[in-house]
Amino acid sequence: MKENLNHQYSKNSIKGVEILSIGTELLLGNILNTNSQWISEQLSSIGVNHYRQTTIGDNLERLTKVIKEISLRSNLLITTGGLGPTPDDLTTEAIASAFNAPLYEREYLWVEIQSKLSNLVINTETSSLRKQCLFPENAQIVNNSRGIAPGMIWTPTNEFTIITFPGVPSELKEMWKESIHEFIKTKFSDGSIFFSNTLKFAGIGESSIAEEIKDLLKLRNPTVAPYANLGEVKLRITAKSTCKDEALKEIQPIKEKLEKKFTKYIFGEDDDTLSSVIIRILKNRNESIVFAESCTGGLLSSSITAENGASEVFKGGIIAYSNELKQNLLSIPKSFLDTHGAVSAEVAEKMAIGVKEKLKADWAIAISGIAGPKGGTAIKPVGLVHISIISPNNKLKNIKKLYSSRRNRCEIQKLSVNECLNSLRLILLSYKG
Amino acid sequence: MKENLNHQYSKNSIKGVEILSIGTELLLGNILNTNSQWISEQLSSIGVNHYRQTTIGDNLERLTKVIKEISLRSNLLITTGGLGPTPDDLTTEAIASAFNAPLYEREYLWVEIQSKLSNLVINTETSSLRKQCLFPENAQIVNNSRGIAPGMIWTPTNEFTIITFPGVPSELKEMWKESIHEFIKTKFSDGSIFFSNTLKFAGIGESSIAEEIKDLLKLRNPTVAPYANLGEVKLRITAKSTCKDEALKEIQPIKEKLEKKFTKYIFGEDDDTLSSVIIRILKNRNESIVFAESCTGGLLSSSITAENGASEVFKGGIIAYSNELKQNLLSIPKSFLDTHGAVSAEVAEKMAIGVKEKLKADWAIAISGIAGPKGGTAIKPVGLVHISIISPNNKLKNIKKLYSSRRNRCEIQKLSVNECLNSLRLILLSYKG
Repeated sequence: MKENLNHQYSKNSIKGVEILSIGTELLLGNILNTNSQWISEQLSSIGVNHYRQTTIGDNLERLTKVIKEISLRSNLLITTGGLGPTPDDLTTEAIASAFNAPLYEREYLWVEIQSKLSNLVINTETSSLRKQCLFPENAQIVNNSRGIAPGMIWTPTNEFTIITFPGVPSELKEMWKESIHEFIKTKFSDGSIFFSNTLKFAGIGESSIAEEIKDLLKLRNPTVAPYANLGEVKLRITAKSTCKDEALKEIQPIKEKLEKKFTKYIFGEDDDTLSSVIIRILKNRNESIVFAESCTGGLLSSSITAENGASEVFKGGIIAYSNELKQNLLSIPKSFLDTHGAVSAEVAEKMAIGVKEKLKADWAIAISGIAGPKGGTAIKPVGLVHISIISPNNKLKNIKKLYSSRRNRCEIQKLSVNECLNSLRLILLSYKG
Repeated sequence: MKENLNHQYSKNSIKGVEILSIGTELLLGNILNTNSQWISEQLSSIGVNHYRQTTIGDNLERLTKVIKEISLRSNLLITTGGLGPTPDDLTTEAIASAFNAPLYEREYLWVEIQSKLSNLVINTETSSLRKQCLFPENAQIVNNSRGIAPGMIWTPTNEFTIITFPGVPSELKEMWKESIHEFIKTKFSDGSIFFSNTLKFAGIGESSIAEEIKDLLKLRNPTVAPYANLGEVKLRITAKSTCKDEALKEIQPIKEKLEKKFTKYIFGEDDDTLSSVIIRILKNRNESIVFAESCTGGLLSSSITAENGASEVFKGGIIAYSNELKQNLLSIPKSFLDTHGAVSAEVAEKMAIGVKEKLKADWAIAISGIAGPKGGTAIKPVGLVHISIISPNNKLKNIKKLYSSRRNRCEIQKLSVNECLNSLRLILLSYKG
């Protein structure tokens, strides 16, 4: 019996699966390792026990050593990168050397590679491309339909199999689907799957949530795991099961507990965003919305218009970044701006009223604040934001926020937009009008 | 003599530095490991020899084992993740257990944590948050100014140091800058540095650039490496040298070659963005700009207002998402909209003229297109975008783009915004007006 990640015990006797990413560019931080994440997702979806990832540079000695190491503790190694024609591409060589196996050229592969590169003039004797045809004697070739370098499935010892992929994500994905998915599922999965359902929270911090659900965070199957982004927390409930329906049954009671405990803090699940939820609610009510933005400078509008279907509820907006435009476009008198200051509850209100009238919508949100780094004073520091939301019956709701001085300009803008959207959501939840 | 990644030989005797990323969510493929890349970049920039990365789940036994392993082959281990309050956060515990060291509570940290969470009701006796104050006796605490969980620098044996970071990227980055950068530079760098200068390109693709500079891409010191993002290509020139001035001398001739070859495609370097470059040019000319956006729905405005100093040139904009607002706010007659259609060069022109007049600015950009996924027709498919730029002397420049059907809504919006900004930049380069 062996612990499968932090999930339940798994019935099979598989020692484990590892991923090895090969490439000095990864160690230099030149590129992001998206391949490891993608393969991890694939392995999870077929319930395969994967417990370690390693990244290593293009160095024959270190590569050979790490492959030997892995062969002693795992059953399956999936490698990415290092299959190309340059002197830095050493994966197949290192694997062969780890098991003292010679490499042989597959003639038919060289014919294939030449035909793939038909518009390139190749010296067939000396071309560096030729090394992509070298494999251990009993390796099974994995065709690369999107690129040049083939991969392999090789079982050098009874207990250990290696699968090699090129580093180009599109080639890897296609090879996985065409040749590897079924192979791994048949040979290395115990037949179970991991299935996840994510609840999304706004208006509450990760520590507050964690503090309230200590018991749930200790569960082993399903597991409950929190993730936090700027202004948004997610709880992912993951069940290991034999099929999706079974997994959903296990997830349901946890979900209900969370929904009962956090009710209005939960704004959606999985692919929902605050914007998509608001579009859905307004569409159902057949109501429209417009914005007047100052400190967020278009970010509120672009958050809504990033979503499919925005045009069904969003009519448009006015970005009154300068005071001059607050006067001209939103009809706020200069004297009023002078008296209260552009960043004030009074001006935010007038902006909301102005934009709703002028753009003729059911709802309007106005926002004025100081995103910094300049423009703050002792009384109105950077991070001060006033929001005003006006409803179809012309009722106003004013919100004042003061974001921490450690927040930068873009963070203040993003947090303000989240506050606008979540406040509107909460108003819409109880709005009878 | 030891090979330092793919750069020149390094003189030092340091065995090596490793990164360990901790979190089952990484193994499940739930999140992308951006921390490893960021730390790798930082290490490169101070010339530190880093040759291996490992990712492991929240499992005490495996964690402890891997930490022991690493301590036998390296001098410095940098860990990320697993410092939080939940039962899955096991990093400090595993490190202590790897060296049989007890953990002690630092009373002052508990006071600090409580004050950071002042609006949370905490049972001070039983709170799970309390475990974030536990450290080995002689560990040096690393303050976390952006979050709750502190990290540590601990040297359990003569030859081995561990630095721990939380997994939240913004917290990690700030802690690195405040406390760790200097520490690692002083103790673990051989005195050489990797220094990079990045040139940024717009209006040209990565393959076109790579094809033209095959010779430069083969260089070993300095190295030239291309990176591509949506609508933007970067070439990073990296020199390994003893100091910044030496490195700059090595980089300079490469940079000049590239500038000569690609002139107007290069819009800036390092932290420049198209927006920041445009703000700089307009500010120097003492000119203002406004936008009228339809399909980009605020993204053009928010790209400008994301930059410091935007308010010195950007007055505001009108997001005329609906046709009704194109009539009301930009004074485009309904008959004109009906004749040409909202997505047309004619309407984009009228939007540019309208917004420039109404908002009284020197420059205006208007954009109208079909971002999809719905709204396309055979004649005007998804991906069709019309841009119009109007200059202080009222000269119009119209641009028509048709983005590939494999692009999604957000990609079309982002590419359109880049096109607007780069087109304006090119006009500004030669504008005499």
